[in-house]
Amino acid sequence: MTVPREGRIRVKIYYEDTDSLGIVYYANYLKYLERGRTELFGSGGTPIADWNRLGFAVAVYRVTITYRAPARLGDELDVVTRRVPGGSSYRVKLQQLVERQSQLITEATVELVCLDERFELREFPPEMLAGL
Amino acid sequence: MTVPREGRIRVKIYYEDTDSLGIVYYANYLKYLERGRTELFGSGGTPIADWNRLGFAVAVYRVTITYRAPARLGDELDVVTRRVPGGSSYRVKLQQLVERQSQLITEATVELVCLDERFELREFPPEMLAGL
Amino acid sequence: MTVPREGRIRVKIYYEDTDSLGIVYYANYLKYLERGRTELFGSGGTPIADWNRLGFAVAVYRVTITYRAPARLGDELDVVTRRVPGGSSYRVKLQQLVERQSQLITEATVELVCLDERFELREFPPEMLAGL
Amino acid sequence: MTVPREGRIRVKIYYEDTDSLGIVYYANYLKYLERGRTELFGSGGTPIADWNRLGFAVAVYRVTITYRAPARLGDELDVVTRRVPGGSSYRVKLQQLVERQSQLITEATVELVCLDERFELREFPPEMLAGL
Repeated sequence: MTVPREGRIRVKIYYEDTDSLGIVYYANYLKYLERGRTELFGSGGTPIADWNRLGFAVAVYRVTITYRAPARLGDELDVVTRRVPGGSSYRVKLQQLVERQSQLITEATVELVCLDERFELREFPPEMLAGL
Repeated sequence: MTVPREGRIRVKIYYEDTDSLGIVYYANYLKYLERGRTELFGSGGTPIADWNRLGFAVAVYRVTITYRAPARLGDELDVVTRRVPGGSSYRVKLQQLVERQSQLITEATVELVCLDERFELREFPPEMLAGL
Repeated sequence: MTVPREGRIRVKIYYEDTDSLGIVYYANYLKYLERGRTELFGSGGTPIADWNRLGFAVAVYRVTITYRAPARLGDELDVVTRRVPGGSSYRVKLQQLVERQSQLITEATVELVCLDERFELREFPPEMLAGL
Repeated sequence: MTVPREGRIRVKIYYEDTDSLGIVYYANYLKYLERGRTELFGSGGTPIADWNRLGFAVAVYRVTITYRAPARLGDELDVVTRRVPGGSSYRVKLQQLVERQSQLITEATVELVCLDERFELREFPPEMLAGL
């Protein structure tokens, strides 16, 4: 029996992340989610840039993101990434939470596919998923 | 009987929009959707910045976005925004499509709420929704 | 005698452009300058993406930018681009102004070089400079 | 005799930082420089968000940035910030380097002023400069 692992990164909020409402701009959370996924896919030992050179690109097929509370300048947020059971070697589903200490800021479900150099579907290499 | 109106804006893709895979970075589509909404909410005559000064902020509660095809440097994309029937004076649901000529690039459903200066829920002012 | 031409584009300020101080974030002006250059370099008939495919990339060597006044949500800014006399087929110097109506918001001097696929210096193709 | 201190932060390059030329987009370096300054101005014990609430905003008056070498996806960059001797309580000049291990990627000179809530010039509070 394997225990599903989770990835966890810390994101600090700077001016670039905020907007004139004084809070983190809603599109920027997708950047933090992507940073979290990049670290997790690289945790098997091959960084994402190397995967790209080998002809494997991780592409987002669908995101559902819910905004629960605003974050602000200076906040330190945790991005937690876990694989959702199911999926296949062609499609991977992740749950990604953004938290500030114990408070939920945003929660997302992200469906991913793997593409080759011509942006055609291909199987995820098992090593890329080893960290999940 | 009223015919629901739609908003339509044009977005040109520059280097800032792309990433090292050679395509538009996935988070940036949320910027284009927001530009489209901003124009639509301002089409009643009061620009969004004025609404903010009056104590009304439009906040995204949830986005579901599906990526159908990649866009690239130099592309000109259309963002089409339509209100989804239903909702209430507290919650508005939009369908937003990003198209390149007749090709669908991304499609999104966006649920919006209206907040006051302390980020508490308030009703959308009818004039703000007049354009939808 | 040739009259130096100038490029002029319009930029509208959305939430994505602002920060929690309520003004346009300083790094974003470099995006507007780049949009202005991209349009100008493409005005000879070959869009910048095509130049890239042909093995020509315009790279910024140095920028000096001075911030004269803040811009805000909803502003419409003009980016004016003019070639500074001098330079060579290997180095082009531009003056770029960002204005809101007649008010100067930022002014910049930008030095550009042309690179090949391996990021080695090469001459600018004359057609690329035809618009300047 | 006091030894001038320097600030040093680490920046990891993700997809969001790159463009379709496969390198870090030139405007994004200004984000990294701002992250470095924010950490340095906060190192006296008062974070920059608190300074904002107290009516002090650090504004960039002028940046000169030179691009020496490209950075790429997955790179880890160091931003080194040092105060340039001279200046006054109204104007502070910094040198900021972005390095990848021992290689210089970009170098910048940044002139800063301090503004009040109405964006009028005011003196830098000594505590804010204590870290420099």
